[in-house]
Amino acid sequence: MILNCVRLFFLIVCTIDQQALFGEETVAARFISERNLKFLLYEVFDAESLTRFEYFREHNKKSFDMVLKAAQKLAKDLLYPIFTEMDRKSPELDKGDVRVHPSVRKIMKEFGEGGWITSKVPFEHDGEQLPSLIADACDFIFLAANYSAGVYPGLTTGAAHLIESFGDQDLFDAYVPHMHAGRWQGTMALTEAEAGSSLSDITTEAESTEQGYYRIKGQKIFISAGDHDGVENIVHLLLAKIKGAPPGVKGISLFVVPKRRMNADGSLISNDVNTSGLYHKLGYRGCPIVQLSLGDGNDCRGWLVGEPHNGLRYMFQMMNEFRIGVGLGATGMATAAYYASLDYARTRCQGRRLSQKDPTLPPVPIIEHSDIKRMLLFQRAVSEGSLSLLMQCSRYVDLQKILEGEEKEKYHLLLDILTPVAKSYPSEMAVLSTSTGVQILGGSGYCEDYPLEQYFRDARIHPIHEGTTGIQGLDLLGRKVTMQDGKAFFIYTEEVKQTICDAEEYPDLKVYAAKLCDTLDRLRAVTESLLAVAREKGPEYFLADATLYLEFFGIVAIGWQWLLQGIAAQKALQDKCPEADRIFFSGKMATLKYFFGYEIPKTLGLADRLLNNDGLTLEMESDYFN
Amino acid sequence: MILNCVRLFFLIVCTIDQQALFGEETVAARFISERNLKFLLYEVFDAESLTRFEYFREHNKKSFDMVLKAAQKLAKDLLYPIFTEMDRKSPELDKGDVRVHPSVRKIMKEFGEGGWITSKVPFEHDGEQLPSLIADACDFIFLAANYSAGVYPGLTTGAAHLIESFGDQDLFDAYVPHMHAGRWQGTMALTEAEAGSSLSDITTEAESTEQGYYRIKGQKIFISAGDHDGVENIVHLLLAKIKGAPPGVKGISLFVVPKRRMNADGSLISNDVNTSGLYHKLGYRGCPIVQLSLGDGNDCRGWLVGEPHNGLRYMFQMMNEFRIGVGLGATGMATAAYYASLDYARTRCQGRRLSQKDPTLPPVPIIEHSDIKRMLLFQRAVSEGSLSLLMQCSRYVDLQKILEGEEKEKYHLLLDILTPVAKSYPSEMAVLSTSTGVQILGGSGYCEDYPLEQYFRDARIHPIHEGTTGIQGLDLLGRKVTMQDGKAFFIYTEEVKQTICDAEEYPDLKVYAAKLCDTLDRLRAVTESLLAVAREKGPEYFLADATLYLEFFGIVAIGWQWLLQGIAAQKALQDKCPEADRIFFSGKMATLKYFFGYEIPKTLGLADRLLNNDGLTLEMESDYFN
Repeated sequence: MILNCVRLFFLIVCTIDQQALFGEETVAARFISERNLKFLLYEVFDAESLTRFEYFREHNKKSFDMVLKAAQKLAKDLLYPIFTEMDRKSPELDKGDVRVHPSVRKIMKEFGEGGWITSKVPFEHDGEQLPSLIADACDFIFLAANYSAGVYPGLTTGAAHLIESFGDQDLFDAYVPHMHAGRWQGTMALTEAEAGSSLSDITTEAESTEQGYYRIKGQKIFISAGDHDGVENIVHLLLAKIKGAPPGVKGISLFVVPKRRMNADGSLISNDVNTSGLYHKLGYRGCPIVQLSLGDGNDCRGWLVGEPHNGLRYMFQMMNEFRIGVGLGATGMATAAYYASLDYARTRCQGRRLSQKDPTLPPVPIIEHSDIKRMLLFQRAVSEGSLSLLMQCSRYVDLQKILEGEEKEKYHLLLDILTPVAKSYPSEMAVLSTSTGVQILGGSGYCEDYPLEQYFRDARIHPIHEGTTGIQGLDLLGRKVTMQDGKAFFIYTEEVKQTICDAEEYPDLKVYAAKLCDTLDRLRAVTESLLAVAREKGPEYFLADATLYLEFFGIVAIGWQWLLQGIAAQKALQDKCPEADRIFFSGKMATLKYFFGYEIPKTLGLADRLLNNDGLTLEMESDYFN
Repeated sequence: MILNCVRLFFLIVCTIDQQALFGEETVAARFISERNLKFLLYEVFDAESLTRFEYFREHNKKSFDMVLKAAQKLAKDLLYPIFTEMDRKSPELDKGDVRVHPSVRKIMKEFGEGGWITSKVPFEHDGEQLPSLIADACDFIFLAANYSAGVYPGLTTGAAHLIESFGDQDLFDAYVPHMHAGRWQGTMALTEAEAGSSLSDITTEAESTEQGYYRIKGQKIFISAGDHDGVENIVHLLLAKIKGAPPGVKGISLFVVPKRRMNADGSLISNDVNTSGLYHKLGYRGCPIVQLSLGDGNDCRGWLVGEPHNGLRYMFQMMNEFRIGVGLGATGMATAAYYASLDYARTRCQGRRLSQKDPTLPPVPIIEHSDIKRMLLFQRAVSEGSLSLLMQCSRYVDLQKILEGEEKEKYHLLLDILTPVAKSYPSEMAVLSTSTGVQILGGSGYCEDYPLEQYFRDARIHPIHEGTTGIQGLDLLGRKVTMQDGKAFFIYTEEVKQTICDAEEYPDLKVYAAKLCDTLDRLRAVTESLLAVAREKGPEYFLADATLYLEFFGIVAIGWQWLLQGIAAQKALQDKCPEADRIFFSGKMATLKYFFGYEIPKTLGLADRLLNNDGLTLEMESDYFN
């Protein structure tokens, strides 16, 4: 434990030392707002209060601040400077081996040695035991600086956590220390060519042997970081069916399948896992996505994690973490794109105010035009709203971990119902808001001289990976809203109502509290109406517009988060606050007003559609598409 | 005239002959629907009726059909097969010269010799004198097959038309025949580094000489096809200010500035127009966009078109044509993306119906899932709706040309008010619907193995070039809606009301007619409310949300087009129609229902916002963005 605190301190000192090495000139354009992040952590979600719990008592605000500072330094010095370069020099498949940007090795080493892969791992497993709230804030910084770069350690963290949670001690000892150190890459190997969103159809097979391992045979596609030369080994957390297993999801087991397995003498030899293809992608090009062929030579060994046929349940722990991670990555990109657009809008002069037609007057910075302000407000409202929701989820992760009984159950249910929203709202909005960023820059936004076009390409992966938006909609409406007789939905709406009550205390928030209250009522009416459809017409009619329901739910959730932020802003504005703070909180209030003025009204059209249970899409004959 | 008919016939025969040359295997995936195009041309917009007018009397339905067939053949054989290749092998700048795909030379030659560049040019200027309705339908086919490829001849057509309209005979003789033949490329050179959307700030200068030409000096940026080796010469239609001209837009003149000028002996020599840069772009990579430096050696000559200081007015003829052309290009891409997604959705099997949980049953084609159908319906509704609006505009172009007096004025005003809508609705929807196409393909949509990622990249240019969506919003609300005391707006709403009346005759359309009527009332209420804001608070408050007004207006316009299509479908369904037609018209009706069920409700939220004149964006301090 003390060792870890020392390591953390060492890490911070090291990173500060690097300043001399990298030089100030590498501290490039802003990609996040430290002020906003600290506002959320300390003023909205009271991160400090977590340190009053036994589990987090070794930490305090000062150490949180040091960690955040170190994360920013690492992001600025190591990740952000190669953001564009990793896109342009994308991975290559060379005689069966994947070559990635040379910095990947350094990144994995720094993240391993600096304790970033183990930030949430308990002291007993040699981790930093940080609250998720702080660790996820750091991940946000990394992903905003360079999404592709952040994926390598992020995947490793999740894969190691899965072994830690469900594997036995031998498995832990054989793999986890190497992964925590950043020497071995972790992956999640689920998808197969004939089974994308439908995992029940996977065909990769595992045959038990007398030696304790399983013989693996099959193909996997779309495996992020599934092979590369930035680490010594790759550890696949892989889903397969044990021969004779029941059909469907009930027959799926989880295995550890390394690219290289350890010989008795401790050396690494090939485990018959071959990279059969490398995808050329629209974006997210700094990280390879590969196709794997396992057991072509009948010599691929896998080790079972936990019990047979429970693989999907185990995998969903990692999956849920990754879904929130996708939301965080999307929010990071959207945030960085916002700052890139803002920087351009402040410096690019063009045109005059609409009330000023004199052509001899100099042009004004485009940020003076209302339409540019509207677009910037959209970018800001959805990215800061998304970040707030994600920090809310991180806080629930912490509370779920440290509380017991009914309280634990409450936060568990809140997380359950919010996970599809925290994955999909930021993802869908990142596509739209990076597109808005391109638009702010106009022709320059379309060219490679500015980073907007890359953000736009990179962001498009998020509504797809770790469960498409369509899948999230089915999960939310078909599973989470209905489970335990609507208990999670009830608890969630109570939370929102509490925020509405709190907001009513502030004169400047009353009108928004009332608006959110109306919108929440509308969401409940829509939900009731859909549940009636489920009873009367069955699941197909019930779920036909689940994606739009998810969209509606997402707007309400972000409205809730803006009201929470509004409360914190009002509290601060009531006190005498310094000018810089007054500007910050005034900007917060203006963005809240934007969200309620421009985004909340979108629920009117969504409600109109969702209350209309005509089965329009369902009844559309597929032959009619022509 | 007879010569031209012969040429047209020759062209058709030639193209049919090429079938043997290219072979059937090059007839690749479908990128448009011939059935739908003919439905619009003949059943909705009655193209044949145009041939009753003197100007078009040489044409008939049979010749229209032959032209359409030839366009499809050319698109399938020459343009579509290199759609991906032109993206991958994008233009290169090599020692000041731009090298493009070798097929560009062939394309320009075919389009010149085949009469495609001159399809709308009158017989007297050696053209085909086709109705815009037919010529634009052909352009749609070309742009759907390969947008970048279609831009080269398209720009040449527009530039030649500008010289034909406003230049003198000498200018016409010196340039137009070469352009019509596809030997010389035409361009539109407006934008400068310090003057993008704000043309009044251009600084390129023209100094008159005693020899009749002007000496040009300046820089131009973002010039499509501004230099390339697929033609012998480039002819820039360029905006510049004559020395001593008044400031602002009133001092802008139009010049012809060739890359190479003709010597007395008829040879071509350099005209001191240099390519100083080539942009690397997100998409639209088959066509170079360059930066030009004119008169570095003080020897760049330009020839004035028409009168001095009238340049912007002349340019707007071409600009308006190009704005509708951008809408057509966006619709082409969106259509091709729809068919690529549809093809995938029909063949890709995954998952089971939601009411069917038995994992031992085989997976179904994903087109069976409601959410996929919803996404396909979105793609289809916006692309077929956009195409209908564009064909409506083409018909207005024809009527404006052949009618006189009040009738002419009516169609002129309708075109004026619809141009910003016909430019921006298809452009914005192409971004969203190609994104939806990517989503339907999931991970495959994100990879270069399928064309969706390219459509997504290519489409992003459209809300930017030829006037951003923001500029279109200002044009619509600030100029077109208010001009002549709202005359254009009044005529337009009368047209929509007439369609509503016509639709009420059909029992299956009554409910949609009523819905469009309500939505039109909502649009009028919003318009009235905004005009009151203009009177009370001035232009800045009036126009703050002009972009959202444009969005609202666009949805109404497309609803109108769907109702028009619904009438044609109902007429056909009343008669005994063959099974293939019944399926086609049933699909039309289902897509109409989608538009009214899912898209029209979006106006509820837009109206809510537009009726709220709180000046929220306008009053946002630019310092508050942080």
